[in-house]
Amino acid sequence: MAEATAFYGRFAHTPSRGALEILDDTLLIIDSKGTITDVLSDSDVDFQKAFDQARASGELCQSGEKSLFLPGMVDLHVHAPQWPQLGRALHLPLDEWLNAYTFPLEAQFRNADLARSVYPDLVSTLLANGTTTAVYFSTIHMEASQVLAEVCRDAGQRAFVGKVVMDDPDQCPDYYRDSSTRQAIDETQGFIEFVRNLSGNDTDLVQPIVTPRFIPSCSHTALLELGRVADQMDCRVQTHCSEGDWEHQFVYERYGQSDTAALAELGLLQRGSVLAHCNFVSPTDMEIMKSALTGIAHCPISNAYFANSVFPLRRALDIGVSVGMGTDISGGPSPSIFENARFAIAASRMLEEGVDPEIASASRGHPDSRIDFREALWVATAGGAEVLDIPVGKFEKGRHFDAILVDHHAATDRAAFSNSTTSGEDFVQQTIYNVSQSDIRSVWVNGRLACNA
Amino acid sequence: MAEATAFYGRFAHTPSRGALEILDDTLLIIDSKGTITDVLSDSDVDFQKAFDQARASGELCQSGEKSLFLPGMVDLHVHAPQWPQLGRALHLPLDEWLNAYTFPLEAQFRNADLARSVYPDLVSTLLANGTTTAVYFSTIHMEASQVLAEVCRDAGQRAFVGKVVMDDPDQCPDYYRDSSTRQAIDETQGFIEFVRNLSGNDTDLVQPIVTPRFIPSCSHTALLELGRVADQMDCRVQTHCSEGDWEHQFVYERYGQSDTAALAELGLLQRGSVLAHCNFVSPTDMEIMKSALTGIAHCPISNAYFANSVFPLRRALDIGVSVGMGTDISGGPSPSIFENARFAIAASRMLEEGVDPEIASASRGHPDSRIDFREALWVATAGGAEVLDIPVGKFEKGRHFDAILVDHHAATDRAAFSNSTTSGEDFVQQTIYNVSQSDIRSVWVNGRLACNA
Repeated sequence: MAEATAFYGRFAHTPSRGALEILDDTLLIIDSKGTITDVLSDSDVDFQKAFDQARASGELCQSGEKSLFLPGMVDLHVHAPQWPQLGRALHLPLDEWLNAYTFPLEAQFRNADLARSVYPDLVSTLLANGTTTAVYFSTIHMEASQVLAEVCRDAGQRAFVGKVVMDDPDQCPDYYRDSSTRQAIDETQGFIEFVRNLSGNDTDLVQPIVTPRFIPSCSHTALLELGRVADQMDCRVQTHCSEGDWEHQFVYERYGQSDTAALAELGLLQRGSVLAHCNFVSPTDMEIMKSALTGIAHCPISNAYFANSVFPLRRALDIGVSVGMGTDISGGPSPSIFENARFAIAASRMLEEGVDPEIASASRGHPDSRIDFREALWVATAGGAEVLDIPVGKFEKGRHFDAILVDHHAATDRAAFSNSTTSGEDFVQQTIYNVSQSDIRSVWVNGRLACNA
Repeated sequence: MAEATAFYGRFAHTPSRGALEILDDTLLIIDSKGTITDVLSDSDVDFQKAFDQARASGELCQSGEKSLFLPGMVDLHVHAPQWPQLGRALHLPLDEWLNAYTFPLEAQFRNADLARSVYPDLVSTLLANGTTTAVYFSTIHMEASQVLAEVCRDAGQRAFVGKVVMDDPDQCPDYYRDSSTRQAIDETQGFIEFVRNLSGNDTDLVQPIVTPRFIPSCSHTALLELGRVADQMDCRVQTHCSEGDWEHQFVYERYGQSDTAALAELGLLQRGSVLAHCNFVSPTDMEIMKSALTGIAHCPISNAYFANSVFPLRRALDIGVSVGMGTDISGGPSPSIFENARFAIAASRMLEEGVDPEIASASRGHPDSRIDFREALWVATAGGAEVLDIPVGKFEKGRHFDAILVDHHAATDRAAFSNSTTSGEDFVQQTIYNVSQSDIRSVWVNGRLACNA
């Protein structure tokens, strides 16, 4: 069969935060560049002709009665080299996790052959889990970082790839540190140029992103220079921000201000940039990000292990700072944005209700903190797109068609047993709570089939 | 192939709480009743002869290099009639969830045909997720409850099935309430006899369990009578206990003492009984349960929605009360004990660290609350068996062979990329964090294959 240029059936997406729209009996048409050119309901005058034409051409893909098109998932925070240790060592304290497991593993990517074997498996697994856009930390190594960019291009995943900078001898081990600040900056520039000139990447599916690991691992000079590079080369930035108590305090002691404010002064809050975690940011910090058009990667599962708290997602959404979802592989043990989305809902309720039964109900939790499945889907799709400032995440004319086809056969059959009406909303809620990789039938990025189970 | 009577390869289990034992190159032999008669390592003198004999007979099942035998999962808390609404309505407050969704759905089981279509799908899905023992709340309906017992027998799942009692007109809706206290008690007795005399249930795979929904839904007379029935008929009991603030307070106001103490006085803490949730029980309550040989069904995902807190699992384990895991379908949206196990680990860390970033680190959490993957596996297997006082959950001579074969091909391959040593412990941790239904290859209950993917 030819690549589909039209898609028919049931679509669900979040046109705005908190709103869920179910489009039944709908025909979506894309052009040769993968951009959505029309979204037609069957009551539309143009519908029948367009439908017949697509069917005749053999380029029509139908959802069927028991499946559903959703926007592709956006994963704003992935440490690519940590893939081999997914689900390992999470019982250890952060220090041991970093020094006995994570840094030694990342350091092995000095041998780019490891990147050649690990990264295709990572990228294809994320695609199979419905992740159409991913934002990657690579390692400090040029060649391995280039391999990651090439792998994303070859797999057809929308990706932002960052070569990591960590140059501070006080905080980084000798065996895994940039050899000099100068080299770290030069290689960041070189890597940006490499990705922008990557052959076969004409649609800019893969883009570079400036990546200081976080303030504690970088010298002041490196941070300043990276801000300058990002500004001059018009490049997004990603880093960690106020993740746990330790990092939050470290930056206050070094810069006398919050992580967010320090990053702003250093020129690192560029438009479309991503700050991972942000559990300890204040409302003022959120306003700074909002003005800078920089957003947050919320990594709910990882936070349970390494962030000493739950990120106040509801507050961030109310303030209007952009928030997307991140797996934080391998600080988070799941490659699935769906599993993270359902965890985010549960974590928001645990923040609202509190956790310690020994504390009286009235003072146990933080009121008005919960989100529901609609907001979780927003954060996992359109929210992440908003953070990155890229036109995906919704089924709207003019956006790229990044989408997945989810089979909710099991959920549908279960619901059919009872006589209760099953709304599109019910199906979406059941999908978020129950979907696993094996339920994701097809994945499209920029209109092209990137995975077909 | 004949049913296997010998199993060879890698086994992992928790011989005691907190301890994880990996048995490599091990041969496990069962008798015709499904009881483990030998666990032989390849250095054992009897090993080679037994291995050759099993292979020659065609009754040897091998794990292969990339899979692992684990004890079957024990799910201590399932509301069977709620299966059709799995993953639905969780954004609603408890009142609305009960009155607009849950009670109307349960009431539909007055028509036993609904049970005939729903319950086989539920039981086979739980088996496919590795649940070899399940403890079920049915509904108030005799025929539908009988159907559930028959379905478990036919599917070969070890099960405890309870016909629910809810007779208090002040707390139960007219359309879903026992018609009288007398009838509720008589039918409970009748149901116990029905299950005990069920044809084809010679090994007592399916057993009855006395099931007052919880104190608030039952009259004092019903509770007293059910305690008497359980005692006289030597039958386990299941009910909810101190789940959320509301229930906890309700019982204090009605009985002037804790839920646990009230249940004890009512004669409802029989040996092998199951108290669901228990988030608000005190150390004294735990001591009462421990003396009574009654245990706790910890339902971590459901608790995030309906229990206003995290159950203090670490404390319960330290006190030595028995604790197993429950999905609490459909208050919990997942049929997987593995997903609940990983959530239990995360929730325990959220209790330890606290959740609200606005509270100072030193007073944010409840110290010494965390568990790790070893304790989670214990709770999901041997702990649940201990609660029920049944000989499963470990690979030891004399126990029933309730087991699953997990394919951890993906995790194995990922780990193989790096040069780090991969211990059996790593594999088990990765399995808990990453396994989904499609990774569970085979499921045995009492030595018989109950599911084969």
